Amino acid sequence: MKEIGVGVIGTAFMGKAHSIAYAAAGTAFGGGLRPRLELLCDINPERAERKRIEMGFARATSDYMDVVNDPRVDLISVCVPNSVHKEISVAALKAGKHVWCEKPMATNVQEAQEMLDAARESDCQTMLGYNYTQNPLVQSARQLIEEGVIGRVTGFHGIYDVDNEADAGRPHSWRMSREASGTGANADVMCHLVSIAHFMAGSEISRLVGDYDTVHKERADPKNPGQTLTVDNDDVCTALAHFESGIKGTLRVSRVAWGRKCGLKWEIHGSEGMICHDQERLNELKLYTRSDDPRQQGFKTILSGPNHEPYDAFLPNGGHTLGFIDVKTCELHSLLKAIETGKPTWPSFEDGMKIENVMDAIDRSALSGQWVDV
Amino acid sequence: MKEIGVGVIGTAFMGKAHSIAYAAAGTAFGGGLRPRLELLCDINPERAERKRIEMGFARATSDYMDVVNDPRVDLISVCVPNSVHKEISVAALKAGKHVWCEKPMATNVQEAQEMLDAARESDCQTMLGYNYTQNPLVQSARQLIEEGVIGRVTGFHGIYDVDNEADAGRPHSWRMSREASGTGANADVMCHLVSIAHFMAGSEISRLVGDYDTVHKERADPKNPGQTLTVDNDDVCTALAHFESGIKGTLRVSRVAWGRKCGLKWEIHGSEGMICHDQERLNELKLYTRSDDPRQQGFKTILSGPNHEPYDAFLPNGGHTLGFIDVKTCELHSLLKAIETGKPTWPSFEDGMKIENVMDAIDRSALSGQWVDV
Amino acid sequence: MKEIGVGVIGTAFMGKAHSIAYAAAGTAFGGGLRPRLELLCDINPERAERKRIEMGFARATSDYMDVVNDPRVDLISVCVPNSVHKEISVAALKAGKHVWCEKPMATNVQEAQEMLDAARESDCQTMLGYNYTQNPLVQSARQLIEEGVIGRVTGFHGIYDVDNEADAGRPHSWRMSREASGTGANADVMCHLVSIAHFMAGSEISRLVGDYDTVHKERADPKNPGQTLTVDNDDVCTALAHFESGIKGTLRVSRVAWGRKCGLKWEIHGSEGMICHDQERLNELKLYTRSDDPRQQGFKTILSGPNHEPYDAFLPNGGHTLGFIDVKTCELHSLLKAIETGKPTWPSFEDGMKIENVMDAIDRSALSGQWVDV
Amino acid sequence: MKEIGVGVIGTAFMGKAHSIAYAAAGTAFGGGLRPRLELLCDINPERAERKRIEMGFARATSDYMDVVNDPRVDLISVCVPNSVHKEISVAALKAGKHVWCEKPMATNVQEAQEMLDAARESDCQTMLGYNYTQNPLVQSARQLIEEGVIGRVTGFHGIYDVDNEADAGRPHSWRMSREASGTGANADVMCHLVSIAHFMAGSEISRLVGDYDTVHKERADPKNPGQTLTVDNDDVCTALAHFESGIKGTLRVSRVAWGRKCGLKWEIHGSEGMICHDQERLNELKLYTRSDDPRQQGFKTILSGPNHEPYDAFLPNGGHTLGFIDVKTCELHSLLKAIETGKPTWPSFEDGMKIENVMDAIDRSALSGQWVDV
Repeated sequence: MKEIGVGVIGTAFMGKAHSIAYAAAGTAFGGGLRPRLELLCDINPERAERKRIEMGFARATSDYMDVVNDPRVDLISVCVPNSVHKEISVAALKAGKHVWCEKPMATNVQEAQEMLDAARESDCQTMLGYNYTQNPLVQSARQLIEEGVIGRVTGFHGIYDVDNEADAGRPHSWRMSREASGTGANADVMCHLVSIAHFMAGSEISRLVGDYDTVHKERADPKNPGQTLTVDNDDVCTALAHFESGIKGTLRVSRVAWGRKCGLKWEIHGSEGMICHDQERLNELKLYTRSDDPRQQGFKTILSGPNHEPYDAFLPNGGHTLGFIDVKTCELHSLLKAIETGKPTWPSFEDGMKIENVMDAIDRSALSGQWVDV
Repeated sequence: MKEIGVGVIGTAFMGKAHSIAYAAAGTAFGGGLRPRLELLCDINPERAERKRIEMGFARATSDYMDVVNDPRVDLISVCVPNSVHKEISVAALKAGKHVWCEKPMATNVQEAQEMLDAARESDCQTMLGYNYTQNPLVQSARQLIEEGVIGRVTGFHGIYDVDNEADAGRPHSWRMSREASGTGANADVMCHLVSIAHFMAGSEISRLVGDYDTVHKERADPKNPGQTLTVDNDDVCTALAHFESGIKGTLRVSRVAWGRKCGLKWEIHGSEGMICHDQERLNELKLYTRSDDPRQQGFKTILSGPNHEPYDAFLPNGGHTLGFIDVKTCELHSLLKAIETGKPTWPSFEDGMKIENVMDAIDRSALSGQWVDV
Repeated sequence: MKEIGVGVIGTAFMGKAHSIAYAAAGTAFGGGLRPRLELLCDINPERAERKRIEMGFARATSDYMDVVNDPRVDLISVCVPNSVHKEISVAALKAGKHVWCEKPMATNVQEAQEMLDAARESDCQTMLGYNYTQNPLVQSARQLIEEGVIGRVTGFHGIYDVDNEADAGRPHSWRMSREASGTGANADVMCHLVSIAHFMAGSEISRLVGDYDTVHKERADPKNPGQTLTVDNDDVCTALAHFESGIKGTLRVSRVAWGRKCGLKWEIHGSEGMICHDQERLNELKLYTRSDDPRQQGFKTILSGPNHEPYDAFLPNGGHTLGFIDVKTCELHSLLKAIETGKPTWPSFEDGMKIENVMDAIDRSALSGQWVDV
Repeated sequence: MKEIGVGVIGTAFMGKAHSIAYAAAGTAFGGGLRPRLELLCDINPERAERKRIEMGFARATSDYMDVVNDPRVDLISVCVPNSVHKEISVAALKAGKHVWCEKPMATNVQEAQEMLDAARESDCQTMLGYNYTQNPLVQSARQLIEEGVIGRVTGFHGIYDVDNEADAGRPHSWRMSREASGTGANADVMCHLVSIAHFMAGSEISRLVGDYDTVHKERADPKNPGQTLTVDNDDVCTALAHFESGIKGTLRVSRVAWGRKCGLKWEIHGSEGMICHDQERLNELKLYTRSDDPRQQGFKTILSGPNHEPYDAFLPNGGHTLGFIDVKTCELHSLLKAIETGKPTWPSFEDGMKIENVMDAIDRSALSGQWVDV
């Protein structure tokens, strides 16, 4: 078993998730590359050291360039705000490090392109944290589709609703400003849905018409009591889409959908069946195929289990439930295999760029009121 | 209790459903107008007489004008193919009969307009059989919305998937020809979804962009073995929509969605909550409102019961399940009240015209690739 | 099409349901015997006449013996309180009338035996209103079991929870008195569950141990404010059971289970699969059979449809939802066929007696604390 | 942050789960005791060393006494077959080590008592791996009950069905022999259900009647082709139970229930509401409380989220899904707090003994056909 030294930049939610994944991967998967928790970076030196101890890293730093330049680090997790994804990823790739970057790729297509260029110029593997595609059950669904279980893919329909900003009483923030953060639900939520669309359909979106809605148009100005500020980006983002393969589909996301906590629901329609998934029940897949006996036709509810690889790295029996962090560990496993074999995994920066292009096209279409090419 | 003489034209599925509703209404609701099964019409005289006996009508005929002109008939059910809705409805209205016409209203907007004109010129009540809006639980949902339970309505999203034509092995039929039947899923399926959109949102769609897809582009020619015919209307129909009230939404329907038998699912998003419904579980409503205790927040699954009027006309206890035909009886009850009081019910021909206009706008948009006004 | 004259005794919930079923049966089923609504009986003459008009009967009476003796009546519905089931049913059978009696059969096994004796001495058909067994989907489940779809039946487990008496604030009533009404949940709720157990298992319960619980032991005395009365029968009733076929099972019912409106849930375990049903979703059946591909194994959710006879008597397409009253009409259809063919249907008074015996055995066991033979 | 040296004995499923929990706990929870992976034990020396590297332990051994006697180890995980739980746990406790032992406690009550005696004589903390009680959502449910959200607890009903042995084609094994492994489903499955019953009801079972069934009575003898061996312990185990608090309930488990992968479902009935949980959807809780508006009454589906402590140690947003291993980490966290504070956690060996006593009482009752005291 070979080791690979890893550095994590950022210690919030995603830094934590990456760190647990690094700590668990060897035990879960055995064989392959075993991560060695080498260097942890947080902009706050005191927190960096405290988290280092909690998380079990060998060393800590508050300067991300220390990670980039560390000879004992071969793989870097970029778990910082989107606005610095490009800067760090490019530096890491130039220093010859593999990069595991959280989603979305960047704040605009220009930055994403710079990241892609850096990846192309390097010999390193890259991966974006579109983790919902890494669920063993979702990967298994993809396999089933490729095996023809639902026939020819004929359509993709997806929704991703969350209620993070549903409360009209939440004050204005940088997320609600086009200048400060770019698009709203499009950037934050749609990117996940596009990743699923591309992965599950096995084809990319090539043409679309998009629309925006801002449901809470004014929000309290946190700095000026009694005043409000205008929300000038999208709470809701929708699109009709054509894929390169010729199929069509729909996408809609909202950040103001009360009651939806992780409401990513998608359906793949096929000429012989249908597969559906709801991320709030990540361990369940719905599958409809034609039945010989018309009295017995219906959607199956498939529970994730050891036949949905690599579920069995975690649990020997079905129905025992994988969680978000287990799926993150699967994601890492996929990246480690790519590093070991030199064969890219999905979604690399190449794949991420295509996702960014769709979000950009939705933005152009929503602003122009026209169908546009991606 | 006053009686009202009724005539039913057509004895297939909908003729049957109307007839059972007429026979059950007095028992279920008591009071009000009691239907008297006067005259049944089927184009086939022999079947007309047989069905008359089975269904308990006083007399039968094979000529719909007999029904139109019968002095003992005050209310006429139009349960025949869409292509003759206009002809019969206009004749009935001119003869001073109330009309209960199945959906969609007609095969194009010109015919629908003629029907509307006839209704406007008469003193009669009209109703279109958009029965999913007549479900006591759905009506109750509408009331709850009006009472502000989910705050301000902020969005409508609806799907109606069926698998009637999902099997690629089904031969070509008139339904798959634009010339013979007009649009496909748009006409057959979308009309129901638009009725729900208008009813639940409390506002009409005013602008939209639509798209079509034909999933099975060639089907076996039933008359020429080994030959195929082209399907030149839509298997799938989607739209992004703006409503007069200012809210936005999405609609999509398919007639080739494997596994969906009556897959009409809709969500009303509100500023303080959400309501969802799935027609395949017509006795369940999902409601999310904010909870004082964050540990207790979640969607409620509300079972239809006696507090959802007029459920109690059928059953005294909740959870005992209404069916499609009970809802049809509720629909009739609503029309009978309109006749009794002279106050129109929803959806009259006025309301139906607005639904037809949306379907027409989707067609124009899908063909032109442009956003269009309804 | 032959007619059969029917009389209904009782005009409350079940009188209504029977009357709608009689009015709908001809239209729904065609062919066979067509009910003719001849004579309606209500103890209150004024209500009898009012209901007669609403319900469309030819004549009304306030004396049930008028129905029993009416030469134009061949089939009598007994829709009155349990305490008079015996008296009326025995009189009707002696007068040569077929009897459709609501459940439970009687208030004790002696009365039930008298009813059975009268049925045996007559040439008439009898049926008890255990309607949950008449659901086309449940009947289809029984067929599938007989065809071996889940292998050998290995167990039956059922629950029937309702919340009719869950509110501790409800005052004492005759239902809560052993003297006035016999057992509590055992009589009211368990009888339905036993009917399902016998029907689905295809075998009767022969030995059991039962237990009672009274959750709300004192309730307000409605006649003496501030006083309470003791509830001396069962709110909850449970049993472990052995069936004649050798399989074992469990049964539990409650009348104080908050949130359950019609919470009848049962599972048939088999050597090769499992079937489950929940009455609150009467149009859905869950079926698990072994799958060739372990990635595709899961319970199917089967929606009722035209392949589950006689669903197609009501609706041509699946997923359109049957309701309680439709199922009541199916029940009637089964009885009409029995009358026509002279072959008993299930559950006749023979079958009902076996259900009563189980309830009696549960009572004996719960009081004695011993396993008992039925 | 203080460290605690840990040793894990056993490297199969549970050894893995404990090891990942140890590696993740510091990162997830911060603060408190941080596990240091000190010594790993597997009976096979080669595997011990290989697993040591994969799992990140400092040292490995094939002799469990090395772990027991290691001065750098303070907490020992017992993840070996049930038959050696006693031997190792007693040795560990005598050596002054805290013990985290997998369930069930032992193979009979005598052994369990020895373990309890050893725990009582030590100053160490003990915990049994009844992990389903450690789910943050389940713990939160317990809190809600204690706060009176569903009023007074009035009943507990639980099921735990799995299909591990459902296939009649599986050959005979030691698990199916009373001599080799004691009871069947009672020992393997019922113990979990009893742990939930005691935890959720807040009271222990004191009296019961139990029953056994063996569904597959003969199985292929793996050593003698064509021969079979008798299964002489229980495939199915059921009980009616009385609790010390006065409430009553039911329990049933099966190891031959096709389609159930982790089918642990329980309901707590209350005088003002109900709470239900299904382990196959471990991130969902069903809660019914009375509603002011009868149109809005229904069960809520509550998704686990940051308000259900300590969910937020893993994920900041609701609906993102915890998995089995996260719950195992919560379990560890509870034990670490006990070690830190000196206050026992639930379920200690004291609590485990009460669970063993119930399983023993079920066995006595099933064999004698009598109600028995626990």
